[in-house]
Amino acid sequence: VTVEVALHPRHPRGVAEAFRGSTAFHLNEPPDDAVVEALSTAPILVTYVWRPEFLVPGLQWVQSVSAGVEQFPATELAERGVVLTSARGVHAPQVAEHAFALLLAMTRGIGVAMRDATRAEWRPRMGEELGGRTLAVLGLGSIGEEIARKADAWGLEVIGTKAHPESYAGVASRVWGPEGTVEACRAADVVVVVLPDTPGTHGIVGRAALEAIGPGWLVNVGRGSAVDEPALVESLESGSLRGAGLDVFATEPLPVDSPLWRHPRVVISPHTAGFSPRYGERLLRLFENNLRAWEGGRAWTNRVV
Amino acid sequence: VTVEVALHPRHPRGVAEAFRGSTAFHLNEPPDDAVVEALSTAPILVTYVWRPEFLVPGLQWVQSVSAGVEQFPATELAERGVVLTSARGVHAPQVAEHAFALLLAMTRGIGVAMRDATRAEWRPRMGEELGGRTLAVLGLGSIGEEIARKADAWGLEVIGTKAHPESYAGVASRVWGPEGTVEACRAADVVVVVLPDTPGTHGIVGRAALEAIGPGWLVNVGRGSAVDEPALVESLESGSLRGAGLDVFATEPLPVDSPLWRHPRVVISPHTAGFSPRYGERLLRLFENNLRAWEGGRAWTNRVV
Repeated sequence: VTVEVALHPRHPRGVAEAFRGSTAFHLNEPPDDAVVEALSTAPILVTYVWRPEFLVPGLQWVQSVSAGVEQFPATELAERGVVLTSARGVHAPQVAEHAFALLLAMTRGIGVAMRDATRAEWRPRMGEELGGRTLAVLGLGSIGEEIARKADAWGLEVIGTKAHPESYAGVASRVWGPEGTVEACRAADVVVVVLPDTPGTHGIVGRAALEAIGPGWLVNVGRGSAVDEPALVESLESGSLRGAGLDVFATEPLPVDSPLWRHPRVVISPHTAGFSPRYGERLLRLFENNLRAWEGGRAWTNRVV
Repeated sequence: VTVEVALHPRHPRGVAEAFRGSTAFHLNEPPDDAVVEALSTAPILVTYVWRPEFLVPGLQWVQSVSAGVEQFPATELAERGVVLTSARGVHAPQVAEHAFALLLAMTRGIGVAMRDATRAEWRPRMGEELGGRTLAVLGLGSIGEEIARKADAWGLEVIGTKAHPESYAGVASRVWGPEGTVEACRAADVVVVVLPDTPGTHGIVGRAALEAIGPGWLVNVGRGSAVDEPALVESLESGSLRGAGLDVFATEPLPVDSPLWRHPRVVISPHTAGFSPRYGERLLRLFENNLRAWEGGRAWTNRVV
């Protein structure tokens, strides 16, 4: 008999399609209000959302659909012997390409040209070159390192920060701990934020970091909470910051009255950096490997607790 | 005494500033209607524009401000013993970054997100991944090769075309002559056009090439004449082409009534791929090297005739 796996209905496009194609387990796709019932027969839950009532006695393993796992009660799960695995690594290729899409849309004037295009206005403006500049990745995890590799391959100097910089082994030439955020921003022309939403990252890109970036560019493909948004708007309006490329915001959807929607030096995408048609197949591959760990005899991948 | 150099007033921003900073020659900056007069004492002309009356008896060398030199009467210059040098290579870094800016704006949905942003509309859409795809460069010259190198460094398979494929020595794994254009398009997911405006390239990306691209992306950072624009609009409207990223057009500025301005799968920039604040310094470096060739004792760079 194959094991039953419950898939919470909130997940990126392509995930359900990929999971339905697997023969390694029986997939149960309950609506949100029937997930608890499904867990009476399914010991495994694949989910982005967490609710306290999901912690039923039979639950053995939670596979997160997201790389960040801050929504899960790690301590409680550990106490109950429930395994928690993240989707770390599944997002790196598309998020790295998205970070460069936002960055190049600023440096090459594509963002403002598209604003012009909606009015059929032909207004050539000077663009910039990235080659030879310094790019700082705040959060050199699996996604951050993929951004670092792409920048390095294009001849940029790469630096960054990481929660535990002593364990770093990548292409960046200089890596600080979180306390080095302002110093990294000062040394960089481009700052790419890939930080998760944790108490330690809230507002870490605040007034001091933004002043340290000076006439540079900021990209955020991590979480909106990492950037002090009122301070960002001030930096843009005072003219010091050359541009912001933002996929994530303090409040999502971005409120209609936010000045970020219309600022000419801001490029916006609606939290789509992680979207990819290949996401489902990569998550399934990770899940099937972990299924062998759950069955015994193989190491877990991305085990958090 | 230092030689006198006439600089025609039409040139990209930054060129005059860079040339004014040189002590290797005396710079004369006449308005358009006084260029002929300036050439009575200046044997060297730096120009983008050509007029028959510029061919005065004292003219010895024309340094083009552009990579393409189709505007100059090469045969006539050769007969009169006038040297013509192009600005080939001066554009490669910024044009290559611009090509990726247009491409990623399509694959990651930045173009359409910016159209939405002007109306403060939050509409997440699926993006795509470039990694592992095949990119064809039509026109593997100095700019094309820089695009090829950037694609190769990001894990794309690179193929392309070149006027004289037998002399190719770059990263592309397969290179055809111009007669292989449709075949290259068929093998590619992404086609980047970097072709100059010559009789042989007019409309070379026509109905057959567009059909061969199929559900792929087209980027044009070469010349608008290379693409059959009515056929392109048809490919977009019939839905086969996934997107077009265009910096150049059949008519520039792009006419207000062109359907390309508002098509949701089109990303537009107003012929700015070659713009860069570093353009002036690179052109000056090239010009100063050629000045030593003109004075004797050193080889010319980019000599056309």
